[in-house]
Amino acid sequence: MLTAQAQGVCVICPTPFLPDGTLDERSAASMTEAYVAAGATGLTILGIMGEAPKLDAEESLRLVRIVLKHAAGLPVIVGVSAPGYAPMRALARGSMDAGAAGVMIAPPMGLRGDEAIISWMQGASEAVAPAPWCLQDFPQLTNVLMTAKMIATLAKADPRLVMLKAEDWPGLDKISALVSMMKAGEMPRIAIYGGNGGQYLPEETLRGADGMMTGYAFPEMLVRVRNLLLDGKRDEAMDAFEAHLPLIRTELQPGLGLAVRKYILARRGIIAHPTVRAPGPKLSDATRAEVDYQLARLARRDPTALKLAAE
Amino acid sequence: MLTAQAQGVCVICPTPFLPDGTLDERSAASMTEAYVAAGATGLTILGIMGEAPKLDAEESLRLVRIVLKHAAGLPVIVGVSAPGYAPMRALARGSMDAGAAGVMIAPPMGLRGDEAIISWMQGASEAVAPAPWCLQDFPQLTNVLMTAKMIATLAKADPRLVMLKAEDWPGLDKISALVSMMKAGEMPRIAIYGGNGGQYLPEETLRGADGMMTGYAFPEMLVRVRNLLLDGKRDEAMDAFEAHLPLIRTELQPGLGLAVRKYILARRGIIAHPTVRAPGPKLSDATRAEVDYQLARLARRDPTALKLAAE
Amino acid sequence: MLTAQAQGVCVICPTPFLPDGTLDERSAASMTEAYVAAGATGLTILGIMGEAPKLDAEESLRLVRIVLKHAAGLPVIVGVSAPGYAPMRALARGSMDAGAAGVMIAPPMGLRGDEAIISWMQGASEAVAPAPWCLQDFPQLTNVLMTAKMIATLAKADPRLVMLKAEDWPGLDKISALVSMMKAGEMPRIAIYGGNGGQYLPEETLRGADGMMTGYAFPEMLVRVRNLLLDGKRDEAMDAFEAHLPLIRTELQPGLGLAVRKYILARRGIIAHPTVRAPGPKLSDATRAEVDYQLARLARRDPTALKLAAE
Amino acid sequence: MLTAQAQGVCVICPTPFLPDGTLDERSAASMTEAYVAAGATGLTILGIMGEAPKLDAEESLRLVRIVLKHAAGLPVIVGVSAPGYAPMRALARGSMDAGAAGVMIAPPMGLRGDEAIISWMQGASEAVAPAPWCLQDFPQLTNVLMTAKMIATLAKADPRLVMLKAEDWPGLDKISALVSMMKAGEMPRIAIYGGNGGQYLPEETLRGADGMMTGYAFPEMLVRVRNLLLDGKRDEAMDAFEAHLPLIRTELQPGLGLAVRKYILARRGIIAHPTVRAPGPKLSDATRAEVDYQLARLARRDPTALKLAAE
Repeated sequence: MLTAQAQGVCVICPTPFLPDGTLDERSAASMTEAYVAAGATGLTILGIMGEAPKLDAEESLRLVRIVLKHAAGLPVIVGVSAPGYAPMRALARGSMDAGAAGVMIAPPMGLRGDEAIISWMQGASEAVAPAPWCLQDFPQLTNVLMTAKMIATLAKADPRLVMLKAEDWPGLDKISALVSMMKAGEMPRIAIYGGNGGQYLPEETLRGADGMMTGYAFPEMLVRVRNLLLDGKRDEAMDAFEAHLPLIRTELQPGLGLAVRKYILARRGIIAHPTVRAPGPKLSDATRAEVDYQLARLARRDPTALKLAAE
Repeated sequence: MLTAQAQGVCVICPTPFLPDGTLDERSAASMTEAYVAAGATGLTILGIMGEAPKLDAEESLRLVRIVLKHAAGLPVIVGVSAPGYAPMRALARGSMDAGAAGVMIAPPMGLRGDEAIISWMQGASEAVAPAPWCLQDFPQLTNVLMTAKMIATLAKADPRLVMLKAEDWPGLDKISALVSMMKAGEMPRIAIYGGNGGQYLPEETLRGADGMMTGYAFPEMLVRVRNLLLDGKRDEAMDAFEAHLPLIRTELQPGLGLAVRKYILARRGIIAHPTVRAPGPKLSDATRAEVDYQLARLARRDPTALKLAAE
Repeated sequence: MLTAQAQGVCVICPTPFLPDGTLDERSAASMTEAYVAAGATGLTILGIMGEAPKLDAEESLRLVRIVLKHAAGLPVIVGVSAPGYAPMRALARGSMDAGAAGVMIAPPMGLRGDEAIISWMQGASEAVAPAPWCLQDFPQLTNVLMTAKMIATLAKADPRLVMLKAEDWPGLDKISALVSMMKAGEMPRIAIYGGNGGQYLPEETLRGADGMMTGYAFPEMLVRVRNLLLDGKRDEAMDAFEAHLPLIRTELQPGLGLAVRKYILARRGIIAHPTVRAPGPKLSDATRAEVDYQLARLARRDPTALKLAAE
Repeated sequence: MLTAQAQGVCVICPTPFLPDGTLDERSAASMTEAYVAAGATGLTILGIMGEAPKLDAEESLRLVRIVLKHAAGLPVIVGVSAPGYAPMRALARGSMDAGAAGVMIAPPMGLRGDEAIISWMQGASEAVAPAPWCLQDFPQLTNVLMTAKMIATLAKADPRLVMLKAEDWPGLDKISALVSMMKAGEMPRIAIYGGNGGQYLPEETLRGADGMMTGYAFPEMLVRVRNLLLDGKRDEAMDAFEAHLPLIRTELQPGLGLAVRKYILARRGIIAHPTVRAPGPKLSDATRAEVDYQLARLARRDPTALKLAAE
């Protein structure tokens, strides 16, 4: 079960598809195993990057079961965000019954007003009860703003809210504000995970984030840099991080980024096909060449990317 | 099957709930029968006003079957709009298998760019194949703008696009532009239905709309005013229409309007409970009193509302 | 000077242009005089309907001076809304120096978060100091939500906030909430004016609004219906109101509505030309014919519109 | 005069303020001189990063004159974007009379529909005539999407459209599409400048951009990396670029980024004060410490940043 004591690297999993657009069950299994091997301490599926709205109810649950089967006991969080409560309830129940550790919820697009937002989230929490849940705070996509105070209000009233995926942008001062409120006993402890593709991994960690929850195609780097930072080796961590930053930047492009990420995962052999389900972006030859160039550069600088150079 | 020759009044059905929020199957049946008796030539369910995103997949199909059973052979259109194609495909298949006449599709919120919009809609049409479909053009909600030319482009390429629910606001000149293109043979005939709660019923009809598709709580009025207009009795039609305009205006309020509509339908005995599924607005005493006052006024002016006065 | 004791009908003035798009100073004068004659107790210029963003700084001040000169001592409120404080400050100073009674401020589009909104409005108030000001709450355009509680917070901290133009939609319960807070002494008195083109004039008045601030082309009707309501003649008021509702509905169309309003004002002889400054909508022949038909109907029912029938 | 043959690095200038929020004229002069010394081939002022909406008309023209006086003959582009044409016309005339080389125009927020967008931009071009102009394509802020085809349509009809500030994100394939249309003679040549804070400087340059127009606090790096890329030294360019990427990433944060940039410019001595005009973000101590750490790292790796290390 997901708890507020969680820490580490929780990898956001894409949903692998075969070239004809059907669910690639074999890649779902191999991807899960690769992430376990990379040092993940948890997995998140059916998030925004998981193309969740493109799956029907049956496919969603099928993916949940495959990932759970291969996760080697790691906690698996299932994104259940939807504009209404009933589909969230249905997917949450199915997932928890199958063995998920918790669910993740983002507010629906365009919700406005502090009170309305808090009230909507509380209803959402009831809908997924008794699952513990992670709040996804991602205003650049949802256009829903939640202040640190609002998150504290939610956490105080709801012991099942145990985790925050912190993706406000800019968001570092919000992490600091939450950490400070927890230290002062002004809100219960929740686990704060950084996101945003890993772009602020060093700062998020040093501000007090308990972990990272993102889908960057080299999760080993997230693990390693986090450990270096926790060991006080900031310069070394930054060296390792900066080697990956050009690629992180390339993966962060809205829409296109997922296609880039799947292309890299396919090149790494973690999934079999880079297919994004329609409607979705396709990589141009120029983009692929740019990614290939960056992978080659990376392979010269980071041993975790070494295998790529050989290909 | 839905065809481009459709005309008349296609009533947008709300989804009735019991006070505890579960589907009110008995009211779904009685509402369907009431609309048939009111002179509807078709029914639309699971539209935006049908609280579709608040239902899970099983509930949606359950509602489809009940309405179909009581529709006395009228064509039933099922709203299948969703951010992704797979849930649309699943609901379209289930609905058509159950006997629906077609499906209705609105573009997902925030889609931008003429080409991207056209391409998304074409993919949506493929997803629901072989169902005939109705395009819901409702930019004030979806924030997606489709010009008359874009609609013509879609219709030319896709014989299954047979109907338009025209809800752009302002939108009368768009209806005229489409009618004129059809007359000039520049696009295939599609059935144009006005919407917007009936607020522009006279103008839409006189601009050449083939019917009305809206959920105003007195569909008999829509039928009667349309017939008067088609018989050339514009002044008489306006008299009948204006008596209802204060109530139409009250039902049109975003969000709150659905609660008003359900309150009136419950007062009319068409559904048993005015329940809106959470999260949703609640009527204040003041609002209920305002609606009651208007219903009383209406009962004095319009025989179709007579029964209400007796209550 | 604008005070919290204001009441009556404050007419929102359009900005009249000559056919070549330059400011029509003569019409600005005649329009002002016509509104005074119609029973207005105040005037508002350079609001959203006043095409304010289409004027440059010099033109704005020129209009202010003309209207002030012809307003026969009525208080004139000047809309100064802008994305930044400096242009607001400049226009507010120029207007107050010229003799305006106060200014009107709407929050800039897309502002989010209760605290951020309150803080922005407080900065805006400082920028226009020492002018008294009217808060325009128009979320369907600004996409900024302000609850009754937030408005009370602003009013408590700022004695220069003396008026609210209440245009949230739906917004009647918000008016009731504010009235109730004032009665309970939970916030200082501010004058609440209804808006929304007059569409909810009866309900707003009966909920306790102190006045109407809108630009409907027949302000005499607003005056008369308000007086009937205040005299307790609700049915008579509704009769008078309903005769105008079809036209109110036509004027309310986003974008197009202003062109309709100017067309009617020109037909009434209140302004010389229906010109909307580019970029702006143009009325089609069909729309003009619809408006003419409604004006003819209105002239048969409402003596205030009688002169039109003769034309 | 701005021409379609422009190339190089055109620095986006912030607007410097004194701690009390008034225009810092001395810093405006020193900043201009610093950018000239850094190798800029042009300057852009009053862009989105220039806090343009926070200035009144008089302040805007004052800044224009100061920058022009110190620009050593470099072409200066003045951002004139506004929701209406009249303020654009006024600022464009004032700026061109003062000696500006051209103006920059972004479409107003939320404009929708390919035809409406094209038509609005054509009206804007007429409003600033006879100035040559640069189109700012920045959909993540304006929410206005322009395809390569739409930009080509604008360029074909308007010889005064000579430059594109390409900030769509992702936007590299759009640059390629435009370059390819120019090569094929399908549209007239316009100068394409990359933007986005420099985040894709290498890719934009290699895709065929003619220059960079961005406000990154180390414009010397933009000049150097661009030259290395044009000399075919891609790996060397990437080394130089990657040393700056952590800082570029930090400056790119919406809202906060400008405060970061001004902080760095103040630390470099390019402006005297890091003041952002209210309402604007303030840097926390933690953010300042993060930036200081990155500046120290940078000073160890890039000679252009050497002076910083000594401080």
